[in-house]
Amino acid sequence: MSGYSFDHLEIEVPTLLLDRGKALRNIAKIAGRAQASGVRFRPHTKTHQSAEIAAWFRDFGVSAITVSSLDMAAYFAAAGWNDITVAFPVNYREIDKINTLSERIFLNLIVDSRETINFLDTKLAYPVRIWIKVDVGYGRVGVHWEKHEKIRALAGRIDASAKLQFIGLLAHAGHSYHARSHEEIIGTYNESLQRLWRIKEMLAGEGFERCEISVGDTPCCSVVERFEGIDEIRPGNFVFYDLKQSQIGSNTEEEIAVAVACPVVGKYRDGNRVVLYGGGAHLGRDSLVEADGGSVFGYLAAPAEQGWGAAVRAAPIVSLSQEHGIMRVDGELFEEIKIGGLLPILPVHACMTAMMHGHYLTLDGELIERFNG
Amino acid sequence: MSGYSFDHLEIEVPTLLLDRGKALRNIAKIAGRAQASGVRFRPHTKTHQSAEIAAWFRDFGVSAITVSSLDMAAYFAAAGWNDITVAFPVNYREIDKINTLSERIFLNLIVDSRETINFLDTKLAYPVRIWIKVDVGYGRVGVHWEKHEKIRALAGRIDASAKLQFIGLLAHAGHSYHARSHEEIIGTYNESLQRLWRIKEMLAGEGFERCEISVGDTPCCSVVERFEGIDEIRPGNFVFYDLKQSQIGSNTEEEIAVAVACPVVGKYRDGNRVVLYGGGAHLGRDSLVEADGGSVFGYLAAPAEQGWGAAVRAAPIVSLSQEHGIMRVDGELFEEIKIGGLLPILPVHACMTAMMHGHYLTLDGELIERFNG
Repeated sequence: MSGYSFDHLEIEVPTLLLDRGKALRNIAKIAGRAQASGVRFRPHTKTHQSAEIAAWFRDFGVSAITVSSLDMAAYFAAAGWNDITVAFPVNYREIDKINTLSERIFLNLIVDSRETINFLDTKLAYPVRIWIKVDVGYGRVGVHWEKHEKIRALAGRIDASAKLQFIGLLAHAGHSYHARSHEEIIGTYNESLQRLWRIKEMLAGEGFERCEISVGDTPCCSVVERFEGIDEIRPGNFVFYDLKQSQIGSNTEEEIAVAVACPVVGKYRDGNRVVLYGGGAHLGRDSLVEADGGSVFGYLAAPAEQGWGAAVRAAPIVSLSQEHGIMRVDGELFEEIKIGGLLPILPVHACMTAMMHGHYLTLDGELIERFNG
Repeated sequence: MSGYSFDHLEIEVPTLLLDRGKALRNIAKIAGRAQASGVRFRPHTKTHQSAEIAAWFRDFGVSAITVSSLDMAAYFAAAGWNDITVAFPVNYREIDKINTLSERIFLNLIVDSRETINFLDTKLAYPVRIWIKVDVGYGRVGVHWEKHEKIRALAGRIDASAKLQFIGLLAHAGHSYHARSHEEIIGTYNESLQRLWRIKEMLAGEGFERCEISVGDTPCCSVVERFEGIDEIRPGNFVFYDLKQSQIGSNTEEEIAVAVACPVVGKYRDGNRVVLYGGGAHLGRDSLVEADGGSVFGYLAAPAEQGWGAAVRAAPIVSLSQEHGIMRVDGELFEEIKIGGLLPILPVHACMTAMMHGHYLTLDGELIERFNG
């Protein structure tokens, strides 16, 4: 197995490769749709966690971002971003960080309980923008979409606080990850919007005329061609995509912009095993359940003119230890693979794979730092 | 839920706590057995990856260690360790690191193919110690235990090289992780030794009089009271233990020396959910399959006079996102847990949990650095 265009990079250990061209095309696609639809594009940065990659988005007109922790918010604020949404429940233990940030930037927080609103009203030193987090069916966090009375009460309580500015409704339809077709993804998207619109209508009737709607998952944002009746999208994973998103139907495998280059350290005819230096410590531990019921932790990527291509189905990573990855390969491909060679492995879940690395290496040999906070 | 002795540490974000007393007792137990049995204790450092924690072992007479990468070897060599085994297949791409290290320290490598022996013989600048890696049933790497002829040929080839010094046979009975009782663990251990002894006997007949035996898994080393007919043990996980090892039967839950302190950020009666700031990014993604077939990503640890106690079965982590952990709790316990509180979560796989953190925080508030290479 050879012919990968990164062979010249002299890689010694498992290394997170980034195809900048693919990432830029992924960004351009979503940014273009957002612009055409007239909605704000506030990309989630938790996938790449890199100030340098975040800066690429500025060329596409992006001036606001989403993060999943206050430490990540502080990192991006230091890099010049001044409109940041923390799409994670308020952590009372970090109130000092909230006050430090909200002095300098437009900080957006999410709430779903009276308790948290009271906490913020008491503890905030500077005004912050508040979104009510709505659970549109995912069942993780947020006020259940049917609890109109509770949502009305929360909006009223926010409105009554001098420090909290009510912006609107924020949802993450994470159950779109269970989809396996465009139809299913669009079904989840439409259902989520119906639920949010009914709340917005109810709030309008109660005098809340300004109520934005922000939605965020990569499957919906990848498949829906035109966004209507919403104000903001917050996808994150799309910048790299991964095998999980391919399985859902968000992207083609050729659009996956990251791969882990793994040295081959063993070959065993017994069991058709190729052993890679590349385990859970480098790929992450997420797995795909394939049609045959087997678990797969990644696939070899096919060679391509630049970088890599689609997944080689005949070369799955079938088990992982901390440092070892076991690829099952037979026939001609087994013979072609050499100990000492370097193989690119497509990630199952790019967000977690990237977290295992301190930086990216682009195909032209540039190191890009990550935060990992 | 309160009464944890780390409440005074003013923890803001998910933090890896280390109970130094428990870790020292775990070390003392294995070190004591090794000493009583007259075998070399060469602990694996991949679990803790910390020069400071490695230094604790010196008080127990340890002067040799095991690592799983050359970068880890370089880190510990810089910390003063001069007898290091890299228990991972030789990565041809790192030959320069091998030569740099073997100039300064006693470097031990493992081989299982003629190709790798030839590679080393050609490329080594300084002598290294060589172990033949034997697959005693785990099926990951190593020469299959029945291939006596191949092992004899490899030993002969090593012997013929001026740069390679044949030390013996090294095995990792990783299939002990499938065990669920002391009897099963001991069965695996005895079977592995029988397989290694037959090879040793065969080699003795061929004139290889010096042939050490090194074995390494935490389950076997935790359960076997006295080591006979071997020269070295290399367990690693035992320093912290975890829920997986408890399930196997290696340890009691009270012996688990690390826990991730997670802030509580949400409570939902609907689904009896407690939402923790503590996801895959902090706990790792390994899961246990419990008796009822459900997957669990960690358990709340009970309060204890110092640190924490055993797992609270009524408080499992039932799902994980990148930053969120969802704990299912009902009844009185649900009422006791407060948003803003801090809960210790026992890890499923301590090696991978620790990799998600840059340092440990001891119960007396000391920060201990990790390498994470």
